Amino acid sequence: MEYNFTLLLDLSGTFAFAISGIRLASGKQMDWFGAYIIGLVTAIGGGTVRDLLLDVTPFWILDAKYFLITGIALIATLLFKEKLFKLGSTLFLFDTVGLGLFTIVGISKSMDAGLPLWVCIVMGTITGSVGGVIRDILLNEVPLLFQKDIYALACVSGGVVYILCNHFHLPTGITAIIAALTVIVFRLLAVKYHIHLPKLQALDAKSK
Amino acid sequence: MEYNFTLLLDLSGTFAFAISGIRLASGKQMDWFGAYIIGLVTAIGGGTVRDLLLDVTPFWILDAKYFLITGIALIATLLFKEKLFKLGSTLFLFDTVGLGLFTIVGISKSMDAGLPLWVCIVMGTITGSVGGVIRDILLNEVPLLFQKDIYALACVSGGVVYILCNHFHLPTGITAIIAALTVIVFRLLAVKYHIHLPKLQALDAKSK
Amino acid sequence: MEYNFTLLLDLSGTFAFAISGIRLASGKQMDWFGAYIIGLVTAIGGGTVRDLLLDVTPFWILDAKYFLITGIALIATLLFKEKLFKLGSTLFLFDTVGLGLFTIVGISKSMDAGLPLWVCIVMGTITGSVGGVIRDILLNEVPLLFQKDIYALACVSGGVVYILCNHFHLPTGITAIIAALTVIVFRLLAVKYHIHLPKLQALDAKSK
Repeated sequence: MEYNFTLLLDLSGTFAFAISGIRLASGKQMDWFGAYIIGLVTAIGGGTVRDLLLDVTPFWILDAKYFLITGIALIATLLFKEKLFKLGSTLFLFDTVGLGLFTIVGISKSMDAGLPLWVCIVMGTITGSVGGVIRDILLNEVPLLFQKDIYALACVSGGVVYILCNHFHLPTGITAIIAALTVIVFRLLAVKYHIHLPKLQALDAKSK
Repeated sequence: MEYNFTLLLDLSGTFAFAISGIRLASGKQMDWFGAYIIGLVTAIGGGTVRDLLLDVTPFWILDAKYFLITGIALIATLLFKEKLFKLGSTLFLFDTVGLGLFTIVGISKSMDAGLPLWVCIVMGTITGSVGGVIRDILLNEVPLLFQKDIYALACVSGGVVYILCNHFHLPTGITAIIAALTVIVFRLLAVKYHIHLPKLQALDAKSK
Repeated sequence: MEYNFTLLLDLSGTFAFAISGIRLASGKQMDWFGAYIIGLVTAIGGGTVRDLLLDVTPFWILDAKYFLITGIALIATLLFKEKLFKLGSTLFLFDTVGLGLFTIVGISKSMDAGLPLWVCIVMGTITGSVGGVIRDILLNEVPLLFQKDIYALACVSGGVVYILCNHFHLPTGITAIIAALTVIVFRLLAVKYHIHLPKLQALDAKSK
């Protein structure tokens, strides 16, 4: 039961991340294959970097479903363009749910590896956000992450909550749900109320 | 005998990939050292990412020849600029031969590691094409790969052929040659007849 | 005593690299969190890539101080903008000292791993310079490294000196100091006297 729930969230998150990559790729004159790769990298990039840093086998090598779901996301995009576009806010919700789940997956993998707590939070944040950074690098843009902080800060806050729940010996399932909800609610509120960190002012005109 | 043949192809492929990196670097006001690094990364980038994902020692750490050949490619570029330019189509052939070989090297390394077949195809494609992607990122361009798909699709098709030949227990040498030829012919035909996948249309004007 | 000296240099180098990342980020309309990440990546990027290639645990996983120092660098930037700007040349000195130290750390780690000497030089250069390359990729610029070679060439020269001193059985501490000074002096002289490698001329107008 719990397994099925996690699986559903994992698949939804992968699908939503893939769609977000494919949508951004469509603005760059990419062909279908290029769009597929961008979608794939958005979905699996964060977890791959995490696994390289933890020195474990990248998760997608053990399971073809991430490649398949990205393919489904591409086909869905080609078939239902207009509808998907109207679904914009639903997709944003998916993306946020994916962010929450991926962050928690990253943290729990790191805790299993016996890493210090702060490293677990870093790994959760990497899992949730690095896919989007690689996507933006490939699309030759300054990563959105650095301009709209809430994304990564939401991951960090979820990580802190996870550590706290774990410290008070809450059951793993409950801990995961509370922490994922923290990420999700944090981000939804931040976007709704336009909360963001101040910009860093240019230090000097000659910088660079 | 067969070893010498493989070595020749490996060296040619490395040389051609290095030249392709150095040529593109020359359009970006790079100095000699910068051009060398771009050539090097183009030649060894794909195999390095593959080895990191497979968790084996990056191949170039065990053998200095890839660094040396890139140096020779740079010197050749500086000495014989005009001639190399005229050799454009020959270089394209080299590059395609290199692509075919690198893809097969990636696949056979992955099969030796006992990975699932679809992962082997992915690793072959990564070996053949990621060097060019890193090159384009360093040159601050959207990777060509995503706009001219044939490159990566040729790798995938060669991978499928490799798996099929292997399934029917053809000798390893024959399998490698047939699969490499598939990559090469696929790409040559695609470029000659301007075959390409359709572009993905922009999904919405406000995307990004 | 020697340990404290190394620690001081390590902290100074990290601080200076973080400041350099944050300064460049400030020209790109980044918020505080984005600037922090750019500073962090500049400081730890080179060593992280080195550790991935050497297949050892990334150094910062074992020690939180790199994350803390980057935080201090961000706070210092926010509090003392004007003063830090005036300190420009001091920071350049810090950055150069950091480059020297990081290069030596990379080389000695690689020699401990029993790698061939030329690989040790490559790893030293990666440790010293890749952080800045990742910084420039994230800021969507062509890496400065490829246009102002002295940075990486200074690392290479320091590496050669390290290997030579080691060959003649000088004590490790002395070897490290001489090699680090080589990097530092090489770069200072190159910048002071505007020494740089020639640019590679564009090979053809149609390149790319």
